[in-house]
Amino acid sequence: MKAELISIGTELLLGQVVDTNGAYLASRLGSLGIEVCYKSTVGDIEIEIEHALRQAFSRSEFIITIGGLGPTEDDLTKKVMARALGKSLVLDEEILHKIKSNFTSQGLSMPAANIKQAFIPQDTRVLKNSVGTAPGLIMREGKTIIVALPGPPWELRRIFEDQVVPFIEKEYPPKNLMVTKVLKTCGLKESEVDEKIKDIMTGQTPLEAIEKPLSVDKALTGQTNPSIGLLAHPTGIDIRITVRGSDKSKLKQMIAGVESEIGHRLGQYIFGVDDQTLEQVVGFLLYMNKLTISVAESCTGGLVSHKLTNIPGSSNYYKGSVVAYSDQIKKRSLGVDKKNLDEFGAVSEQVAKQMARGVRKACKADLGLAITGIAGPTGGTHERPVGLVYIALAAGRKVKVKEHKFNGPREVIKEKAATAALDMLRRYLLK
Amino acid sequence: MKAELISIGTELLLGQVVDTNGAYLASRLGSLGIEVCYKSTVGDIEIEIEHALRQAFSRSEFIITIGGLGPTEDDLTKKVMARALGKSLVLDEEILHKIKSNFTSQGLSMPAANIKQAFIPQDTRVLKNSVGTAPGLIMREGKTIIVALPGPPWELRRIFEDQVVPFIEKEYPPKNLMVTKVLKTCGLKESEVDEKIKDIMTGQTPLEAIEKPLSVDKALTGQTNPSIGLLAHPTGIDIRITVRGSDKSKLKQMIAGVESEIGHRLGQYIFGVDDQTLEQVVGFLLYMNKLTISVAESCTGGLVSHKLTNIPGSSNYYKGSVVAYSDQIKKRSLGVDKKNLDEFGAVSEQVAKQMARGVRKACKADLGLAITGIAGPTGGTHERPVGLVYIALAAGRKVKVKEHKFNGPREVIKEKAATAALDMLRRYLLK
Repeated sequence: MKAELISIGTELLLGQVVDTNGAYLASRLGSLGIEVCYKSTVGDIEIEIEHALRQAFSRSEFIITIGGLGPTEDDLTKKVMARALGKSLVLDEEILHKIKSNFTSQGLSMPAANIKQAFIPQDTRVLKNSVGTAPGLIMREGKTIIVALPGPPWELRRIFEDQVVPFIEKEYPPKNLMVTKVLKTCGLKESEVDEKIKDIMTGQTPLEAIEKPLSVDKALTGQTNPSIGLLAHPTGIDIRITVRGSDKSKLKQMIAGVESEIGHRLGQYIFGVDDQTLEQVVGFLLYMNKLTISVAESCTGGLVSHKLTNIPGSSNYYKGSVVAYSDQIKKRSLGVDKKNLDEFGAVSEQVAKQMARGVRKACKADLGLAITGIAGPTGGTHERPVGLVYIALAAGRKVKVKEHKFNGPREVIKEKAATAALDMLRRYLLK
Repeated sequence: MKAELISIGTELLLGQVVDTNGAYLASRLGSLGIEVCYKSTVGDIEIEIEHALRQAFSRSEFIITIGGLGPTEDDLTKKVMARALGKSLVLDEEILHKIKSNFTSQGLSMPAANIKQAFIPQDTRVLKNSVGTAPGLIMREGKTIIVALPGPPWELRRIFEDQVVPFIEKEYPPKNLMVTKVLKTCGLKESEVDEKIKDIMTGQTPLEAIEKPLSVDKALTGQTNPSIGLLAHPTGIDIRITVRGSDKSKLKQMIAGVESEIGHRLGQYIFGVDDQTLEQVVGFLLYMNKLTISVAESCTGGLVSHKLTNIPGSSNYYKGSVVAYSDQIKKRSLGVDKKNLDEFGAVSEQVAKQMARGVRKACKADLGLAITGIAGPTGGTHERPVGLVYIALAAGRKVKVKEHKFNGPREVIKEKAATAALDMLRRYLLK
């Protein structure tokens, strides 16, 4: 079955907002056995929305539209949908009541604009929105099913998970399944990962791949089974394993076989799977080891702390941080010696070590992690270039320190340094 | 002229990565007078890439492909492009030399996989990549121009800005211009903004908009001139003003007229324009007022500090932060009284005020900003629910504090609290 996503919103074509909903839905539909084959984006223009809908009707059996259900003038989805399906818009009293009480419960009266959200095309199943005012919709046109979801990501996700997933599971019991697993690595470059596993990926050398194209059926489907793809981020490489077939347990076995072979070659460079983050893994290891952590940040400016505290329950193991941009605070709150600052500079092994020890003591934590470096774009010298970062980890009476040289713009250097710090902590906790 | 973007990568259709390049290019092309009319996404499958290319040749005069130029097995763009254009792939010695020296300069030898990146379709202009190994390409097919750019965002941006923009400016001197300006607000809901400016948006009431569709030419183009659209984020509403025409100075006047009218109605709710962030504006105001800032964070866990330090040059006004998750650090590093913690709790006006005063003192800064609250998902009670946040600002001997109630998941509450804190600082600095 061919599924299609249509994102609606001029802001998407003008590039003012990044479409995270498309990625979310594509991933979730894939796991339900529905493969997204087309993804298109149109502006808030009636004729273009209608054109995209009619094109989708002609080629896809399952369509999800995203956005354009809000209360404002440029929210056109329902109006155009009704016209394309030859239906009229009718007032839904229940939705109207729900929207009104959303406002009255907050002591506000409903703005006139919101009444628009209570009009829906005839013969439509309403998907209640418990976290916002715009309800979603499910409509049928012959064999085709059309789902309309609101654009705000957490409203879309809630409605999709609570109401659309059960609908899909009932309507399309999976036949041709696709199972995907992602192995997440950090510390290696894309070509290093490729070098280590390329024979698993295709069995061809790169020159062979250029000179001898793949066999016809491989070229037609573009994939082997299992197929393996790499995805490079500034902070690490994801390895995506995909298998297709009808027998779920066999697919899981296939995945496990490839995973074990790749795991054997890459070892601790793999930190997690699927949508796990480094901070989740580190949090889990801290929790299991019953250890607490504190952080002294200079060039990362709070990013390591922000990542650690994104994890629910992090207050069980995370005690606190000192973000020490000025030398004054390095001395005062972290106990860094003036002598070390003068002799070696704030970006040095010596200061990194003292920061790690100092924050551990100030927070009475088991571990102290410290990052000091030059995030740029200015502040670099010939001896201490932009991207030079020292990361130290204090545990008990011991302190380890490591030098890194990162490249990229300021925010990328912050990301890379934060990742390397969390990874140093992870590797310590694995021992 | 119709322009089209084709994003290539199975990871995009599986939802494993969010396409930020599309948004970037759409926005930049718009400012160069080139309107992106189609945006499509295909997987790393030869036949699908070829299909998308052939469809684009049939309807668009300017095409940009994104991704698929890397060294690995699933990077297929050049191979398919050559076939679709009836060209063969040839080895470019200069590119090969460049890639080799990239590696040797780092003391590494070139992995065999990277040689693939030195093969390009015949009669192609090479776009040098100074920040990575995959070069971009410009090709012509009759009247159509095809640009291929690598997927990593900072490689794509650098090549686009340095080499594609000058090419576009020479090849397509702008005729029909589109100028966009975004006014960024925080502190108002979408329907509140809509209520205040909806007559500027269309001159229709919402009920009229449902009952009386727009006039034919409005419905055809879907827009008035100037046209105004709203875009809701969890932390604020963007107002997008777009004008079209041929006379640049007239367009600027039109924008200025609308901007002034909206500015009059929304006042200080507007914090910036276009891609300005709250932290940029706050940083600028701190710098202009020659004031330094320090931050005490509890529920935001370092996010305010991370945002402030994302701005190059922030070391001129940002001194440091204490992220105080445990009460111990609140007492020890910020001087919060045990009595206040026991009597009022860590999430209280009293503790917020003491945190703001304490961090100002610890960092010897002019201002102290403090955030304490419950980010959830657990930890809430009936009296102190998840989302309750106190924000305090200490300046001289004065401390102000404000209570907020935010909703949403943990990361959204962190974002909203960080935004409210920066906004409180901004409004103080504007006085």
